[in-house]
Amino acid sequence: MIAVTILGNNSAIPAYDRHPTAQVVTVNDNMFLVDCGEGTQMQLSRYRIRRSRISHIFISHLHGDHYYGLAGLINSFGLWGREHDLHLYGPEMLKEIIDLQMKAGGVQLPFKLIFHVLGEDGVLVDLKRTEVSCFKVQHRVACWGFLFREKRNPRKLDMDNILAAGIPSSYYEKLQQGEDYTHKDGTIVKNESVTHAAPKGKSYAFCADTIYDESLAGKVKGVDMIYHETTYLHNLEERAASRFHSTTLQAGQIAKLAGAEKLLIGHFSSKYEKLDAFLEETASVFPNVELALEGVTYTA
Amino acid sequence: MIAVTILGNNSAIPAYDRHPTAQVVTVNDNMFLVDCGEGTQMQLSRYRIRRSRISHIFISHLHGDHYYGLAGLINSFGLWGREHDLHLYGPEMLKEIIDLQMKAGGVQLPFKLIFHVLGEDGVLVDLKRTEVSCFKVQHRVACWGFLFREKRNPRKLDMDNILAAGIPSSYYEKLQQGEDYTHKDGTIVKNESVTHAAPKGKSYAFCADTIYDESLAGKVKGVDMIYHETTYLHNLEERAASRFHSTTLQAGQIAKLAGAEKLLIGHFSSKYEKLDAFLEETASVFPNVELALEGVTYTA
Repeated sequence: MIAVTILGNNSAIPAYDRHPTAQVVTVNDNMFLVDCGEGTQMQLSRYRIRRSRISHIFISHLHGDHYYGLAGLINSFGLWGREHDLHLYGPEMLKEIIDLQMKAGGVQLPFKLIFHVLGEDGVLVDLKRTEVSCFKVQHRVACWGFLFREKRNPRKLDMDNILAAGIPSSYYEKLQQGEDYTHKDGTIVKNESVTHAAPKGKSYAFCADTIYDESLAGKVKGVDMIYHETTYLHNLEERAASRFHSTTLQAGQIAKLAGAEKLLIGHFSSKYEKLDAFLEETASVFPNVELALEGVTYTA
Repeated sequence: MIAVTILGNNSAIPAYDRHPTAQVVTVNDNMFLVDCGEGTQMQLSRYRIRRSRISHIFISHLHGDHYYGLAGLINSFGLWGREHDLHLYGPEMLKEIIDLQMKAGGVQLPFKLIFHVLGEDGVLVDLKRTEVSCFKVQHRVACWGFLFREKRNPRKLDMDNILAAGIPSSYYEKLQQGEDYTHKDGTIVKNESVTHAAPKGKSYAFCADTIYDESLAGKVKGVDMIYHETTYLHNLEERAASRFHSTTLQAGQIAKLAGAEKLLIGHFSSKYEKLDAFLEETASVFPNVELALEGVTYTA
């Protein structure tokens, strides 16, 4: 299961107690933070998230509303006594900015902060049960989306059939990986006869800030849940394009083209106090859509 | 009158809905922001402060809890359409940090941001009715306090006596400045006989983060209201000293030595949920003390 907890769902200017972008993505035992707008450390406290479990932070781009909370969070991790590594993925200049801020404050972190520069589309993190990759999106500055995948679980053993077939326990791990078993006399036990397929791993794509771009759908094809920004309602389509943002109908269209199961929308302009129209408009194109509301956890 | 509105009263780690340091200081028609911890722009909105009136921002030092909200506020000033100049006073590296963040985000501000480097003690801003100066304090990194003074108001004209003495109206402004009037025949009208002294201008000293330092009292001698940090209660005096912070009793002692009228205390450690003991302990040394509470305005 993948769980996404929204900490900020607003665009550049905080308004109506809506905060700039930040999301906690939990995949199996792994907890990730995606973007870190101003106030993220307060939002983590407000929603009682076990921040020490965050192992990797991904920053999509260097507009302030996506990372101005990062230096504060890193500092606070130090003050809270964190000792385990923290991996940070972001555009190249992010390292320079954070290094400069730590230097200016004379900060000595008690943990290792390991910076990784985002570049070509590809796998960033390959853990036992989880994989995270990045893909470029089209925005005013260099910008990346992130794709989270649960790895396919190992096949489940059918112990009755395994014992009946006389397969030694030293071979069980290979059975879980889908291999057949060959007896000394050459007879073969087909894997399907002694194991069952595990459910398919889930996937979630965070598409960051982006102009309407149909090629994006190809990059996240078949994903279970997709987060796509809807900075504006449909009637401001021109403004959206001029600022490299998207509208409700466009987000719905990308989710449809990608064949996603579920769509989450956010990054609402501070022009809008009420959000109902975002849901209605998007649902007209892609019915299984939800507003990304702060403090709420959505699952894929 | 000088009015100080507290936006953040906590030390490094935000806790219990208390925020890092930020204060709005209003002197006559002038509005200043002192320090700008993370979330200051949200706090300005929460307390409905007319942020466009802020003309000068003073940053005491480069620990994150005193300036991590600055880049976000500057950005938002741009998005809100500010066109008039903004003066920023801070340690030298602050310019590099802000410039780098604006460059990384491709930000073109629609107003002029004028940076001034803090240095020796002295006057920073000299306006018609207000003067702001800085003074060095002792902290782990270079750190400054700020002293706000209402200039002494012009003397009040006693129109009955002025008319009786036959003084022409073209001379009224000089009378307000305290000058005598000499008739053509050489007879002198003493200023005191035709004007009244205006009330003395008020003053407020923001002493930033500081270790207990008696020389500080000399720098803010006779000030009406003083803000002095109390990161810790008295029993943690050693910890306070080791971190270049102060305790309740020490803040009271500085206010007493300075001969201040009123003391405001803040920058409370996130160790403490309740603040009552801060008030009690400090009042045992300096009775006219108040807790700096967020959203509350204190006047000198």
